[in-house]
Amino acid sequence: MKPIYITRRETFNAAHRLRREDWSASKNEDVFGKCSNKNWHGHNFELFVTVKGTPSQETGFVMNLKDLGEIIKENVIEKIDHKNINLDVSFMQGKMSSTENLAIGIWEQMENLIKAKGGMLVKIKLVETENNFVEYFGGEEPF
Amino acid sequence: MKPIYITRRETFNAAHRLRREDWSASKNEDVFGKCSNKNWHGHNFELFVTVKGTPSQETGFVMNLKDLGEIIKENVIEKIDHKNINLDVSFMQGKMSSTENLAIGIWEQMENLIKAKGGMLVKIKLVETENNFVEYFGGEEPF
Amino acid sequence: MKPIYITRRETFNAAHRLRREDWSASKNEDVFGKCSNKNWHGHNFELFVTVKGTPSQETGFVMNLKDLGEIIKENVIEKIDHKNINLDVSFMQGKMSSTENLAIGIWEQMENLIKAKGGMLVKIKLVETENNFVEYFGGEEPF
Amino acid sequence: MKPIYITRRETFNAAHRLRREDWSASKNEDVFGKCSNKNWHGHNFELFVTVKGTPSQETGFVMNLKDLGEIIKENVIEKIDHKNINLDVSFMQGKMSSTENLAIGIWEQMENLIKAKGGMLVKIKLVETENNFVEYFGGEEPF
Amino acid sequence: MKPIYITRRETFNAAHRLRREDWSASKNEDVFGKCSNKNWHGHNFELFVTVKGTPSQETGFVMNLKDLGEIIKENVIEKIDHKNINLDVSFMQGKMSSTENLAIGIWEQMENLIKAKGGMLVKIKLVETENNFVEYFGGEEPF
Amino acid sequence: MKPIYITRRETFNAAHRLRREDWSASKNEDVFGKCSNKNWHGHNFELFVTVKGTPSQETGFVMNLKDLGEIIKENVIEKIDHKNINLDVSFMQGKMSSTENLAIGIWEQMENLIKAKGGMLVKIKLVETENNFVEYFGGEEPF
Repeated sequence: MKPIYITRRETFNAAHRLRREDWSASKNEDVFGKCSNKNWHGHNFELFVTVKGTPSQETGFVMNLKDLGEIIKENVIEKIDHKNINLDVSFMQGKMSSTENLAIGIWEQMENLIKAKGGMLVKIKLVETENNFVEYFGGEEPF
Repeated sequence: MKPIYITRRETFNAAHRLRREDWSASKNEDVFGKCSNKNWHGHNFELFVTVKGTPSQETGFVMNLKDLGEIIKENVIEKIDHKNINLDVSFMQGKMSSTENLAIGIWEQMENLIKAKGGMLVKIKLVETENNFVEYFGGEEPF
Repeated sequence: MKPIYITRRETFNAAHRLRREDWSASKNEDVFGKCSNKNWHGHNFELFVTVKGTPSQETGFVMNLKDLGEIIKENVIEKIDHKNINLDVSFMQGKMSSTENLAIGIWEQMENLIKAKGGMLVKIKLVETENNFVEYFGGEEPF
Repeated sequence: MKPIYITRRETFNAAHRLRREDWSASKNEDVFGKCSNKNWHGHNFELFVTVKGTPSQETGFVMNLKDLGEIIKENVIEKIDHKNINLDVSFMQGKMSSTENLAIGIWEQMENLIKAKGGMLVKIKLVETENNFVEYFGGEEPF
Repeated sequence: MKPIYITRRETFNAAHRLRREDWSASKNEDVFGKCSNKNWHGHNFELFVTVKGTPSQETGFVMNLKDLGEIIKENVIEKIDHKNINLDVSFMQGKMSSTENLAIGIWEQMENLIKAKGGMLVKIKLVETENNFVEYFGGEEPF
Repeated sequence: MKPIYITRRETFNAAHRLRREDWSASKNEDVFGKCSNKNWHGHNFELFVTVKGTPSQETGFVMNLKDLGEIIKENVIEKIDHKNINLDVSFMQGKMSSTENLAIGIWEQMENLIKAKGGMLVKIKLVETENNFVEYFGGEEPF
């Protein structure tokens, strides 16, 4: 059986800011620009979760999307949707809330849970605005 | 000359919350749900500004989109992009930061400035998420 | 208080066919083309429901989108999503399952329920493919 | 029978420029900016054609979309797709190739042909880029 | 000459269901949920076909998109558009009509035909809804 | 630290044609079809630039998107936006203006400049219409 890749999209809305308390206001402004606004800003994020596997003879599925959807909702969306990434999200504490770090954090919430359901998490794509997104392959470098 | 309608799209990202301090936490939760999160959440907003007029014989334009773009950027985007709607935006002070109120506030920032350039503002469409948006016609009721 | 318009989007997937049993196969093919396939075809539909009203002083809302979302889900989505429009949808029995008739049927499921929640249903937009959609204003003719 | 509105989308790609030969280069630059580039630029246009009518009892259709599609293709798309709007399109000769003028020209190509098939053309929407579009209602002013 | 990848998008609309006749109704419901509806449901599918090659010196093309488009239309779209995947599509007989199996079936229809025109099929992406899609690389595992 | 991929989107509008002066009109028409129109046509292009790296401890960034945006604007967008690819763009002289060649040309404008800012350019995706796009990995073959 040949491997194939399935992707599930979910969305969430959250506030955050990029700002280091150990830096001056002007250095924050220089490096993070408008993203350093003290009173936060926010985004509609789109999250794409890709799982690799071979289709089951019985169902034709790599993994039941209902199971994948539940893993994403319980372990990512409920923790982050309509929240403040810097203040409210336990797995982002002590880190800059860049899209890069958020994508890595999301990967870590789900990797083992997806494996337990027979799938293999291979990619997280996190879209912050129509003009920028991040892709993470668990540290692998496909290109 | 027959009237025609031009629309310019701009985008901004902002934080907000829907929460009344004169209400209990549970009433806020009942009415506003996840939108009442104390630590804010946020969105990528899409703003569509529609102007009515007749095309100039010389240029073919109802209004120069460069002028319209500058009015939107100076009077709306710079005041709200990467900001907190409840805390940072002067024209939203003392109001609930619902999409409805935000659309009306944006209309009021621009109506006269567009008139001064020879256009007639007739519609604001404000998209908060892929699942909800608001349209405001200055109080007119086309349908 | 000035009126404003809010829109909620929902999606559903359904099968249907356009085919009159009282017509010959060749007349069905002439008029309905590929849409007359005996064994059905289907679409991902997008439904946009627009409600007019004035924002509440207390909430800033024309109508709570949670209430609107529930009305749409209970009265439209649950009846039609992952169904066969011709065979499974009670409010479409005895009618051609054109996008036009479906939009009118959807309006009729919700008009009174939205009124009971203080809103006024003014528009149904039903998108069948990226290349065609229908808009219904309850028989009004805004343009 | 109550009126309803159907819309058909088509796309085309074309070159054009906004430039008056009776103006100096600097005035062209002032008014038209980058759009005045002597050697042309171009766009992927999206065209939305809206027809009003009442659904037929027999078919459920306001108008057969196949007929509408053919009218659009023969009278608009074939004349303008992969063409230069200023040089190649007969109905744009002697006019500035603004989106406004192009939308009006497209309306005039089709109004009577759609009427002959039993429909009533009520709106042309012409999208030039993701950030600007024009709507024309045949000179009517719905809002 | 360095390799580069071109992708052609086509769309089709089809009905299907996920349901095993050798399972009870309740097991079908458990595993396939709403997708097991006896009377079918359907989707607007988007198909992206990616071909690898090096641009020709004469044309700048990896492969003429007209040829690629014809292969896709004749061998996939005509067989599946406005059809029932379970009943009408010969290459899906005896298989569950999951998105995974459909993507693999589509690959097999075209691999050799594309090779005969000098291209190398390297990826099929099949989008079933805005929330789920499948990618198949002919059994290769790029990540 | 594990590698991650960030992508920045920019847009531009340009005219071009696919036509060889050393070929007859009919051969141009055979091979390039409508794209060979003597008087040009044009597109809204979308450009996606992907950079690989590891997030900085201090900023959480692979590379500051402000820097990446400036490199793209100065070295690509300013040279090509609202221009004629065949006549106005220095890095496309002497080449067919196919999407393939344009993507390779864009890569060459930026590879070293991105490296100088600490990033590694790994992919250019260039979307010409909603139905076709090109991906270039600098000659690498990830799949």
